[in-house]
Amino acid sequence: MNATVHGRTRHYRTITFDPARNVVLLVEQRLLPHEFKVVAAKDFPETAAAIRDMIVRGAGAIGATAAYGLAQGALAFHGRDLRKFRRHVDAVYQTLKAARPTAIDPVNAMNGVRATMRAGTTVEEQQQLALAAAEEFANEDVAHCEAIGRRGAKLIRNGMNILTHCNAGWLAFVDVGTATAPMYAAQAQGKKFHVFCDETRPRSQGATLTAWELAQQKISHQVIADNAAGHLMQRGEIDLVIVGSDRTLGRTGEVANKIGTYTKAVLAKRHGIPFYVAIPLSTIDWRLKSGFDIPIEERHESEVLGAWGVPMNSKFKIQNSRLKYVRVANQTSGARNPGFDVTPPELVTGIITPVGIFKPEELWKRRRDLGFAG
Amino acid sequence: MNATVHGRTRHYRTITFDPARNVVLLVEQRLLPHEFKVVAAKDFPETAAAIRDMIVRGAGAIGATAAYGLAQGALAFHGRDLRKFRRHVDAVYQTLKAARPTAIDPVNAMNGVRATMRAGTTVEEQQQLALAAAEEFANEDVAHCEAIGRRGAKLIRNGMNILTHCNAGWLAFVDVGTATAPMYAAQAQGKKFHVFCDETRPRSQGATLTAWELAQQKISHQVIADNAAGHLMQRGEIDLVIVGSDRTLGRTGEVANKIGTYTKAVLAKRHGIPFYVAIPLSTIDWRLKSGFDIPIEERHESEVLGAWGVPMNSKFKIQNSRLKYVRVANQTSGARNPGFDVTPPELVTGIITPVGIFKPEELWKRRRDLGFAG
Repeated sequence: MNATVHGRTRHYRTITFDPARNVVLLVEQRLLPHEFKVVAAKDFPETAAAIRDMIVRGAGAIGATAAYGLAQGALAFHGRDLRKFRRHVDAVYQTLKAARPTAIDPVNAMNGVRATMRAGTTVEEQQQLALAAAEEFANEDVAHCEAIGRRGAKLIRNGMNILTHCNAGWLAFVDVGTATAPMYAAQAQGKKFHVFCDETRPRSQGATLTAWELAQQKISHQVIADNAAGHLMQRGEIDLVIVGSDRTLGRTGEVANKIGTYTKAVLAKRHGIPFYVAIPLSTIDWRLKSGFDIPIEERHESEVLGAWGVPMNSKFKIQNSRLKYVRVANQTSGARNPGFDVTPPELVTGIITPVGIFKPEELWKRRRDLGFAG
Repeated sequence: MNATVHGRTRHYRTITFDPARNVVLLVEQRLLPHEFKVVAAKDFPETAAAIRDMIVRGAGAIGATAAYGLAQGALAFHGRDLRKFRRHVDAVYQTLKAARPTAIDPVNAMNGVRATMRAGTTVEEQQQLALAAAEEFANEDVAHCEAIGRRGAKLIRNGMNILTHCNAGWLAFVDVGTATAPMYAAQAQGKKFHVFCDETRPRSQGATLTAWELAQQKISHQVIADNAAGHLMQRGEIDLVIVGSDRTLGRTGEVANKIGTYTKAVLAKRHGIPFYVAIPLSTIDWRLKSGFDIPIEERHESEVLGAWGVPMNSKFKIQNSRLKYVRVANQTSGARNPGFDVTPPELVTGIITPVGIFKPEELWKRRRDLGFAG
């Protein structure tokens, strides 16, 4: 999407790859919205660390980063021995996969890259195929998000108030985003609407990333505390909910997404408000048979016990970050910090995919259209 | 309750009155848990400001503060003209009432003080009656909270995980607290249990005040993001919810409390988890006929857009507060900030009062026991 940084507007993708330097280039999302900075992960362990430490986050974004990371790791191999190369690629795969457990996109993306590589008969051929497959994954992610925008825009009517949780915007994908794609498409059609961004504690991706994205695109919006949506729904101030997903089970229609999503789905159901989940095909897990089997990442308690921000009235400097952590909670207290939750299909009105909007229980029936290869 | 401040343990009340100086003494709650400081509000406008600016907050606490503030204002009157005195007291009343609109305790407390004053035939008599009535309100608040503890402790069984929202602890009352009173009583009975404190954005009273209180009393607890309770309930990790209230309607059983309470009640209902509200009698509004008529305070957007805390590794100094505000959200985005929400009676398992635990719809039937004077 276009972003205006220091008064200059240009088009950015969240993730790109520089084959000349064999580096993955990432928008440093931990600094947004206070700094806009592109950083280079210089080898696959750095790329894995960028996923783990949330320099890059979001389903499609870490999918593409893992795909590029796998190609990056493959390209770093010196030698002609295919068996050694395969062992090396396996190690790269495992390192990238372990970076974050809940999202399925990295696994699906890397499986796709590996499947493509197998057509190569030499190390060099496989290396080139890996890079081409990673590029293809990234381009397909963009195409999927654009298709989600076209499909989802029809859900948005003039004057609507829309709730979204966390960030499933272009920063969470290679471009365009999923939950935000229908908003961007509806805006392009001239529709007027308002978006409430759940701040999405503990990492505040709604207050930082989604609010920044919507401000950049001049879409009317306000941040709300995660506590406030229930009250707004009760007072008739929310008409539609659209969120993303880190893993959606193709067999059951269960949706894993950022912690707090389940709560919003429960509230939406109670108030008869449509609740949609927007996903590219790479977010579907065709293997697991129950949402209880989705590994839920437990993150460090410091995220819950404090907050990151800029001191008031500070002139924010790119070179010397003034982003500060403040400890909010009582110093002698600890925290629990599950990063995701699972929303059952009966709470989901529809899943917005690149090929159509389906009820969650229809995913399995439509699996051939949705890329199931099993 | 006892608090250990700089290694010295002593008993504190949240609010006391010094008649010699005609000042209201308050624990400065905006600095907790990072500083423990008692401040003096030197006249009734300062007392009103202390309520408005949340130096003191919580249903019973602002009730007692308003009662003392009314006495403080009355005592500051010079002269013998009873009509002029009554007009002065009316102005004091209105100033204190306007400080925060959602809570009913200040109104009930001040109405009680005014009713008592009427027995006096001179200004001086009325002044002394006002002070005595304010002291009586504060003492009654403590007695109510102790009774809530005795009644509520039986709900807590060994090994339970209890969720609470915001702070309805001793800091929210004159002493002991409401939602925490059953916990303190159960602990005194030797029961072992664990408390999850919702951090309670935007002002984080759960992470700061409740976590501090529970740590002081050595009750096992962890802070969680407001987003996390739904997931924990889904996984069977919460057995009981106890919260406070800022206004409970005696006619309908509707419960106004800190924003996010309604959400927790909806989730508890879905998961079959008992949801209790603990209140002293001063929190009951016998007048309003519908929860939609409760004024919901909209607070400043800066609360949602940032967070208060101490910079990491700072040595916190009492004299020179190092508490800092950091802006978390995108700089060009605004926020909505409703401070309270209303939970309908069908989501409330029981109301823990000083005279018994009742279903919300029983309040009206039991109104004579519950102090209804109409």
